[in-house]
Amino acid sequence: MDLATLMGIIIGMVLLAFAIIMEGDIMLFWSFSSILIVFGGTFASIMINFTMSQVLSVFPLLKVAFSKKTNDSIGMIDVLVEFAETSRREGLLALEEKAQAVDEPFLQKGIQLVVDGTDAELVRNILEIELVFLEERHGLGQRIFEKMGALAPAFGMIGTLIGLIAMLGDLDDPDQIGMGMAVALTTTLYGSVASNLIFLPLAGKLRIKSDEEILMKQVMIEGILSIQAGENPRIVEEKLKSFLSPVERESSNGGRGGKTSSERMTANA
Amino acid sequence: MDLATLMGIIIGMVLLAFAIIMEGDIMLFWSFSSILIVFGGTFASIMINFTMSQVLSVFPLLKVAFSKKTNDSIGMIDVLVEFAETSRREGLLALEEKAQAVDEPFLQKGIQLVVDGTDAELVRNILEIELVFLEERHGLGQRIFEKMGALAPAFGMIGTLIGLIAMLGDLDDPDQIGMGMAVALTTTLYGSVASNLIFLPLAGKLRIKSDEEILMKQVMIEGILSIQAGENPRIVEEKLKSFLSPVERESSNGGRGGKTSSERMTANA
Amino acid sequence: MDLATLMGIIIGMVLLAFAIIMEGDIMLFWSFSSILIVFGGTFASIMINFTMSQVLSVFPLLKVAFSKKTNDSIGMIDVLVEFAETSRREGLLALEEKAQAVDEPFLQKGIQLVVDGTDAELVRNILEIELVFLEERHGLGQRIFEKMGALAPAFGMIGTLIGLIAMLGDLDDPDQIGMGMAVALTTTLYGSVASNLIFLPLAGKLRIKSDEEILMKQVMIEGILSIQAGENPRIVEEKLKSFLSPVERESSNGGRGGKTSSERMTANA
Amino acid sequence: MDLATLMGIIIGMVLLAFAIIMEGDIMLFWSFSSILIVFGGTFASIMINFTMSQVLSVFPLLKVAFSKKTNDSIGMIDVLVEFAETSRREGLLALEEKAQAVDEPFLQKGIQLVVDGTDAELVRNILEIELVFLEERHGLGQRIFEKMGALAPAFGMIGTLIGLIAMLGDLDDPDQIGMGMAVALTTTLYGSVASNLIFLPLAGKLRIKSDEEILMKQVMIEGILSIQAGENPRIVEEKLKSFLSPVERESSNGGRGGKTSSERMTANA
Amino acid sequence: MDLATLMGIIIGMVLLAFAIIMEGDIMLFWSFSSILIVFGGTFASIMINFTMSQVLSVFPLLKVAFSKKTNDSIGMIDVLVEFAETSRREGLLALEEKAQAVDEPFLQKGIQLVVDGTDAELVRNILEIELVFLEERHGLGQRIFEKMGALAPAFGMIGTLIGLIAMLGDLDDPDQIGMGMAVALTTTLYGSVASNLIFLPLAGKLRIKSDEEILMKQVMIEGILSIQAGENPRIVEEKLKSFLSPVERESSNGGRGGKTSSERMTANA
Repeated sequence: MDLATLMGIIIGMVLLAFAIIMEGDIMLFWSFSSILIVFGGTFASIMINFTMSQVLSVFPLLKVAFSKKTNDSIGMIDVLVEFAETSRREGLLALEEKAQAVDEPFLQKGIQLVVDGTDAELVRNILEIELVFLEERHGLGQRIFEKMGALAPAFGMIGTLIGLIAMLGDLDDPDQIGMGMAVALTTTLYGSVASNLIFLPLAGKLRIKSDEEILMKQVMIEGILSIQAGENPRIVEEKLKSFLSPVERESSNGGRGGKTSSERMTANA
Repeated sequence: MDLATLMGIIIGMVLLAFAIIMEGDIMLFWSFSSILIVFGGTFASIMINFTMSQVLSVFPLLKVAFSKKTNDSIGMIDVLVEFAETSRREGLLALEEKAQAVDEPFLQKGIQLVVDGTDAELVRNILEIELVFLEERHGLGQRIFEKMGALAPAFGMIGTLIGLIAMLGDLDDPDQIGMGMAVALTTTLYGSVASNLIFLPLAGKLRIKSDEEILMKQVMIEGILSIQAGENPRIVEEKLKSFLSPVERESSNGGRGGKTSSERMTANA
Repeated sequence: MDLATLMGIIIGMVLLAFAIIMEGDIMLFWSFSSILIVFGGTFASIMINFTMSQVLSVFPLLKVAFSKKTNDSIGMIDVLVEFAETSRREGLLALEEKAQAVDEPFLQKGIQLVVDGTDAELVRNILEIELVFLEERHGLGQRIFEKMGALAPAFGMIGTLIGLIAMLGDLDDPDQIGMGMAVALTTTLYGSVASNLIFLPLAGKLRIKSDEEILMKQVMIEGILSIQAGENPRIVEEKLKSFLSPVERESSNGGRGGKTSSERMTANA
Repeated sequence: MDLATLMGIIIGMVLLAFAIIMEGDIMLFWSFSSILIVFGGTFASIMINFTMSQVLSVFPLLKVAFSKKTNDSIGMIDVLVEFAETSRREGLLALEEKAQAVDEPFLQKGIQLVVDGTDAELVRNILEIELVFLEERHGLGQRIFEKMGALAPAFGMIGTLIGLIAMLGDLDDPDQIGMGMAVALTTTLYGSVASNLIFLPLAGKLRIKSDEEILMKQVMIEGILSIQAGENPRIVEEKLKSFLSPVERESSNGGRGGKTSSERMTANA
Repeated sequence: MDLATLMGIIIGMVLLAFAIIMEGDIMLFWSFSSILIVFGGTFASIMINFTMSQVLSVFPLLKVAFSKKTNDSIGMIDVLVEFAETSRREGLLALEEKAQAVDEPFLQKGIQLVVDGTDAELVRNILEIELVFLEERHGLGQRIFEKMGALAPAFGMIGTLIGLIAMLGDLDDPDQIGMGMAVALTTTLYGSVASNLIFLPLAGKLRIKSDEEILMKQVMIEGILSIQAGENPRIVEEKLKSFLSPVERESSNGGRGGKTSSERMTANA
């Protein structure tokens, strides 16, 4: 689990619940029709704006925002250097089995292509096209979440207008005025919280995870091509580390435990 | 029918109606003058902003947003590969009749040019210029819907101001105050729903359909030129599939039924 | 007259008047001080933002938005093809008189340069520089109208604040509260209508007319240079038609009446 | 004085004062604490956002927005043509004294470099670097004014919130409610007027003046380099006039009085 | 200390406190649950949007906004010229000790590379990659602060909605209505002040400090490479000064006191 994502949502919800309890009765803040309008309306509008298959592709992306699979570029560099060593000692074929042990289909596909003796240029082309489509798929996810972040407050306001009109059209019982307005405002509250605590920050997290994943996949492509070219493992390491920031580079030089790198990657997944 | 577009509008409307009924009398939410101001005002402003012929060109585009014609690039690749086979077996002339069977004027035009023996470079030029104008026409449609999405809430607010001023100028009967405000707010509600549930999502759907259609037309152009060059049907297939995402490519390899591809395209239209 | 612009403004105004009459007394919506604040304030702010000569240059541009002079590129192509024929039959000098008959100073200037034997490259340069300055002048007009569209609602709100403060500072007579608020809100109404029904759509129309005019002037430049080069009228026609969209191209092939093209252009102006 | 800037501010203020007097007591609109919050808050926020020296550099720029020094490119072309003539008749050294008579340090510096026999490429480099820094300095001024235009309404709202909270927390005397709200709203009024009538339009005017000044400095650079190259004064004039719009070019050909051009420039400063 | 940043915050706070005291009881403006919602909610949303390590990297950046370390490019040029002289008199090795005396790790690293005899191209590469990562790190800081500036008012409004709903749901005691609204509005006030007086201006200051630091580091890179190339100290000075604006260049020529430049830099840190 990506603790930041989950903790952020939990902290935000607890804070709001705490503030609500401090100020009044929590049941006052529950409204089924508000949920219908904000989430139903947002979903309906998203269905019109996108195609059905695009909307459905969002749910798997959600996993990305919550998953801890940290796109550990440092660990991946270790794995690739290990592969380079194996390849020079035991030949390219020995990589096939090792690649199966790492839970990273992109790496497995690349190694398979190399083991099959595919031309280097073609290996790069195939992997980079896959990367372009990955970027597009993630970019679509971000756009859908940003759209939801824009729609939720709009439907919140629509719900509040409905509540206000209903209340204003029936002012016979003055005792109900306050209650009516309270219910009406609940929808705006729901829309605002959904947008600022859920949809928009998730869109942001998807962007960051996507950038990380693309960086790691670029490291993999360079590594696989270096291995195919039979480069010296030391040089492979130097080359791949230029993708890391100075801070990450330092941390990659210290504190390695007993586990081999590929074990770390597998455990990590 | 593109079910997502239609279902989105229906779901949204049903949800709002349900929420309205839960909270009060649905007749309270009907206002003829609100419709006049929001839709009439938006339309008047659009007439000033665009030329008459541009405004009228929007209505045919609406069909695109609702039509199910899914720009089935996979099916089109199958058709083009079939054409490539026919062309190698029976010559280019045999394509003329086959093209008539596919309900796709752009493909027919391209095949006709090839059958007429037009120079390859000229075929590409003619088809690409047509594509540029298609993009512009679709882009104009999106801009008009986005403009409507911005204008509807503005005229909603204008209607509410008119209602409030009328009510505030005549406060003699206090019983009418609530009713007056309710009517005034209805216009804002109409403008907000029209923008967030209709105009803006339709602009988004037009963009996606337009992107799909342009991709499919690019597939057609490449396919037609490959057929003209007499390329091997297998190579034509490989070449055209590089336009598809990995997911689509996989689905194009499985589950083909008994119908030939061109029958599928015709049925699809 | 560009009917769309005028009709849009009339339709919008009639709709608003109708809605006002349906809801109350139309005199309630008249406020001289609101007009002062919204239009005076907007004008004052525009004067600070731009130079005097820039502000004054807007008024001639307004004519463009309302004029029917439709930048009839199809008609212009006919005229240029006619000129190409004349030039081949009777020589370049014969164009001088024909050009005077067409009410299009840009074309006259270009033809005059050609008749005077100016170098082709220089003809292009002179005409294109003129085009750049035309674009800038039109772009300035759009920016001023967009600025006015942003300022009018702001000054509307300023007027409403002034009205509210005046009313709240003198609450002795409760009967006046509603009236005071009504008057205060009128200014916001004026600003909102001025922006959404006048200033912003006019900015949009100016952009479209400007795009049309620039396209037509590009057609003229290409045509004049082709005539100077003594190209075949048929080829001139083909070349210029590539500037038109497929729809326009088709309509240019049908329904030509008895009048010659240059007569049409003159009548059109 | 740039009359447009000053007149715009005066007209705007008079209109607002007039509207205020028409509606109520002008003293109601005076609030010292509102001025503190809007202008003090805006200034404090600007101090955090920029460095002290950047904030101080804004005040000299204000002169630019109000000064009449119109960056008279036409007059400058006349001066440069005169210089070109002098230089061909009496040699480059004769320019030194003439340049002192024109109140334009940039021109003086350029002429001095030429008189000192600096290499042409170096003269261009030195003057263009100065131009880049001028653009940056002006661009900073615009950004600061735009920031102030965004901050003033925000602090206006902050002041209104403070006033409302103070009033709502002490509702014992109902007579004070209206007065309290009036005072609270005054701060929003101040912020809105400051932004829309002062800060944002001044940012716009700075941009226009900056564009004009940069155009004139480019004319100077080209002129100085032409003089250094000993070009014919007629050609210098033609070359520099291509920087002017057709309208300006025409006006530069008519109505020159008896004064020499350099006298005009000096009087103009 | 960067006095502008600190003074801006203090002045803004004092002004607001003053305005509050002028209008009412300062205790009215204290609300613990408002702080919870605005700052807690903003922080929770930031945690979801970014990764934990990105959020933590903001705190060191805050020092940059407050630190007086003014990226004194002029002083740095003096230091580099001194180094160039030392290097020519005593050889590159003599720089090692001198570099230790200047509190600037980037300069030390560069000098060390030169002393170690690293290839010039490699020195440039290593230092420029470090610069790219520095830019990214600062850019991330700005984005986080801008996000906080957008979130704080949103959570302010959320808190106000919670307060209003709680109050409206319990209208039994009319005396509490005003108080309830006052408390509700406090949250909006907190969010608005946090955004406009703290988060957004700090984001702006970070940008300016970052630009300054990057400029100074570019000066260092050029200087180090010139020293390595053994260029004449006079030429090094001229070259580096082209990075300064004309104003800065002038000030760098006057008023140097008795201290050597490297002493100045050290004292400055």
